Amino acid sequence: MSNTAPILLNGEWKAAQHSETFTAQNPITQEALPGSYPVSTWEDCDAALTAAAAAADELAPTSSGQIAQFLRRFADLMEQHRESLGQLASRESGLPAEHRLAGREMDRTTDQIRQAADAAEQRSWKQISIETKRDLRSMLAPIGPVAIFSPNNFPFSWNTLSGGDFASAIAAGNPVIAIANSAAPGTTQALAELAFQAAQAAELPAAMVQLLYRLNHEDGKRLVADPRLGATAFTGSTAAGLALKAAADQAGKPIYVSLSSVNPLVFLPGAIREHGEQLVNRYSNVCLKGTGQFCTQPGLAIVIDGEASQRFIAAITAKFNAATPGTLGSQKTLDNLVQQINVLKQAGGKVISDAGQAPGAGFSHPNTLFQVSGADFLASPQALQTEAFGNTALFVVCQDVAEAKSVIDALHGQLAGGIYSSTDGSDAAAYNELAPRLRRKVGRFMNDKMPNGMPVSIGMVHGGPFPASGHPGFTSVGIPHALRRFAMLQSYDQVRPAHLPEELKNKNPTGNLWRNINGTWTTADIPAD
Amino acid sequence: MSNTAPILLNGEWKAAQHSETFTAQNPITQEALPGSYPVSTWEDCDAALTAAAAAADELAPTSSGQIAQFLRRFADLMEQHRESLGQLASRESGLPAEHRLAGREMDRTTDQIRQAADAAEQRSWKQISIETKRDLRSMLAPIGPVAIFSPNNFPFSWNTLSGGDFASAIAAGNPVIAIANSAAPGTTQALAELAFQAAQAAELPAAMVQLLYRLNHEDGKRLVADPRLGATAFTGSTAAGLALKAAADQAGKPIYVSLSSVNPLVFLPGAIREHGEQLVNRYSNVCLKGTGQFCTQPGLAIVIDGEASQRFIAAITAKFNAATPGTLGSQKTLDNLVQQINVLKQAGGKVISDAGQAPGAGFSHPNTLFQVSGADFLASPQALQTEAFGNTALFVVCQDVAEAKSVIDALHGQLAGGIYSSTDGSDAAAYNELAPRLRRKVGRFMNDKMPNGMPVSIGMVHGGPFPASGHPGFTSVGIPHALRRFAMLQSYDQVRPAHLPEELKNKNPTGNLWRNINGTWTTADIPAD
Repeated sequence: MSNTAPILLNGEWKAAQHSETFTAQNPITQEALPGSYPVSTWEDCDAALTAAAAAADELAPTSSGQIAQFLRRFADLMEQHRESLGQLASRESGLPAEHRLAGREMDRTTDQIRQAADAAEQRSWKQISIETKRDLRSMLAPIGPVAIFSPNNFPFSWNTLSGGDFASAIAAGNPVIAIANSAAPGTTQALAELAFQAAQAAELPAAMVQLLYRLNHEDGKRLVADPRLGATAFTGSTAAGLALKAAADQAGKPIYVSLSSVNPLVFLPGAIREHGEQLVNRYSNVCLKGTGQFCTQPGLAIVIDGEASQRFIAAITAKFNAATPGTLGSQKTLDNLVQQINVLKQAGGKVISDAGQAPGAGFSHPNTLFQVSGADFLASPQALQTEAFGNTALFVVCQDVAEAKSVIDALHGQLAGGIYSSTDGSDAAAYNELAPRLRRKVGRFMNDKMPNGMPVSIGMVHGGPFPASGHPGFTSVGIPHALRRFAMLQSYDQVRPAHLPEELKNKNPTGNLWRNINGTWTTADIPAD
Repeated sequence: MSNTAPILLNGEWKAAQHSETFTAQNPITQEALPGSYPVSTWEDCDAALTAAAAAADELAPTSSGQIAQFLRRFADLMEQHRESLGQLASRESGLPAEHRLAGREMDRTTDQIRQAADAAEQRSWKQISIETKRDLRSMLAPIGPVAIFSPNNFPFSWNTLSGGDFASAIAAGNPVIAIANSAAPGTTQALAELAFQAAQAAELPAAMVQLLYRLNHEDGKRLVADPRLGATAFTGSTAAGLALKAAADQAGKPIYVSLSSVNPLVFLPGAIREHGEQLVNRYSNVCLKGTGQFCTQPGLAIVIDGEASQRFIAAITAKFNAATPGTLGSQKTLDNLVQQINVLKQAGGKVISDAGQAPGAGFSHPNTLFQVSGADFLASPQALQTEAFGNTALFVVCQDVAEAKSVIDALHGQLAGGIYSSTDGSDAAAYNELAPRLRRKVGRFMNDKMPNGMPVSIGMVHGGPFPASGHPGFTSVGIPHALRRFAMLQSYDQVRPAHLPEELKNKNPTGNLWRNINGTWTTADIPAD
């Protein structure tokens, strides 16, 4: 027998059908980590799809209680294994186990999973709509098996097997086919073991959760376009995401991608005057924290030229120079960053931080701060909004508000963006000019705050126009709205009462399920005629 | 000056930049109708996009009242011109003016527009979600200019300038670039005149409604992918729809397509026994009414073999033979139907109606009824679910329920589908086997009813898995849900109260706006801390 790790297929841990294997690397020591993982061939995908489709059939319309039980049990198990999971994820990501992984991130992840459990149980996310007069009743229903491809910048809260996509796909009632991030096969395997145990305890179908470690590009494209699949969630590199999106789009299969975003922040003069020092610290910290590896890292800062702005940038430059560069998640992340930095340089980005700064431990790159003028930016708006995923940022120094307006108009879609303005009204005119234009470009719009920290909330949006996401009507973070991605809208037209799903019957099945009845939201029953 | 009809561009009726012109044809007399219409070049698209983007900017967040006023005024104007519009549309479509066009269809269209006006005014469709603790507030907001391509089978209720896509794109707060159906340029021009008049009366931006008559394929693809555009709605032929979808998908621009659907109806043995004669009449009428030209025409009927089913099919065949074939909307519709019928024949469809039946007036084809066995269907499931758009239908005669199950499993996504079953419980086992499988394939699921008539209701879904629609999470009919297609989800993260849009402020702006506050739907204000 080989020592290659087993995949989780239809309730069994079994040897993969594979051609190749791969190993993960410790990003700090750059040593290969123990464990060999298979690149599955199509046979494994095919078997996983068949099993997932059967599981989707098997999931009764009344399984929401079991799903909630599964998710809660899984969250409990994760917390019971907090320390060992933290160590494992730290070795694969280079991120600190204590505080970060086994601490804040674990807490955020299990909170998100428990919120998803509550949503599954309550079912109010289903957007139930009933017109009694003509007996038309509609609701969101499971879309079918969901394939998930995830990054490793948040080894738990974005993990393909414990992150927001996983939690929301499951909570919406769908089996998941998880494709591990290649940098995190061990963490993902450990999570899959716990998830499978929890799913079995809840007596869910064997194929509720399946795990493959890696696919070649052709099989990935085939998977997302397969008729047995319901939808796909992908967060990762633009090239891989666009290839999968093209394949899924052609087959008419929903795919939710999160590709690239530089999350513009505008610092208006009054805000710099009022809070300059605080903003220098906050902005530098946010750009460099976790080596800048998060989707909403505010990599593009816009200021209006002036002495105070120049001092502001100089102070941030000093912070970039003084901070020890962190470690990036993988050789690939480092290679991509070097390439992205070159794109910015070639497009005219002037490096203002110390280009000769010594890198940090392992996969590391000097902290890199760029500056361009508004005119420079407008000459190459595409290249200069390249996301350099890591410890970098770019300042756009505009000569006036009108130029800043043009810069904002030249942005493509972004996950988040915001404006810092003074409290004394001195920035009001500029704010009013810029805010409506920036608002349209971003999924989440902020005032006077950095985009780090992303509460899992009913009011959160992690999405936005392309390429921040593939469809600006959805969010990938936020319970319950993130569940809607994995649902189809179903109408029941004069269906006999006995044939209606529980949620659509006249009697409210739980007494706390929100339903829109003839235009009014209520938790009441529909009175019998 | 040429006699070529003017386009409506940024508030002016002006000569098109065009290379070619076209005319429409009376489908009954087959004579060319008066009026010459331009095929616009890219210059017109470009100008329309620039104007529409500026109009989208101009539309204040508080314009919902104006939009409602516009839509109501437009509905009033349409009704004032009921007779002349009916005559015009009848000449271009071959459908009867009296009863149908100037009657029922006009009523349905203006009702839909008025429902959209109410939704625009009330704003409860915006899915407002507020978490007070962390001050996160989200809502659906206008997506930007919407391009609309529409069919001519319902010359008013699906018109690019008065149909459901138009009403919902406008009600969601977006300017519309309407591309007329080539068979209906005169009707569309007349509607545009009324719409423009109504928009001006409501003091909306000049480019709120613009009209082009036709584009070449390349310009169509360029339009739907343009960065200035918000989204596209397309209902029409599969080939054209797929080409536009590919272009929009590549650019990451939402496009809602409705391509093809055969709307399967299952007639279980007990239902045939109980109501056979009534079902013969209803099914034949629905298949042949309006020459079968509607999206939810139930072109695929599934029965379990047996003497009663054979008699049922024979009776429907007799109805098909006895009915005078109607007129199809255009030469193109006829050509497509002939081609689609050939696909069905080549795939083994056996024509059981009188193949030599004399056609009706103008563009007409004999009523055509097909029959195949379940095994035949399963041998060519793709070809045999080709939508033959017109006065045709296909019976699939299954040897048992298990075979019917396989037939249903072989279907792609459909707009509508349903099951007729007996009232005495004799069909219960078969129903329970088939219903969950059919449910997953269709946007709208019915019991004991035909899919014609499609109330504009909060509980309606006109959508479904591909190719019935491009995304099963949306509907193109039904207020308010149809509006969600033309919206982006926006979060406001700790945005200062004075900077929040009216809908998200603590005070409920109207007192009847439904908002989800901390998980509870309410029309109340948020109490001050």
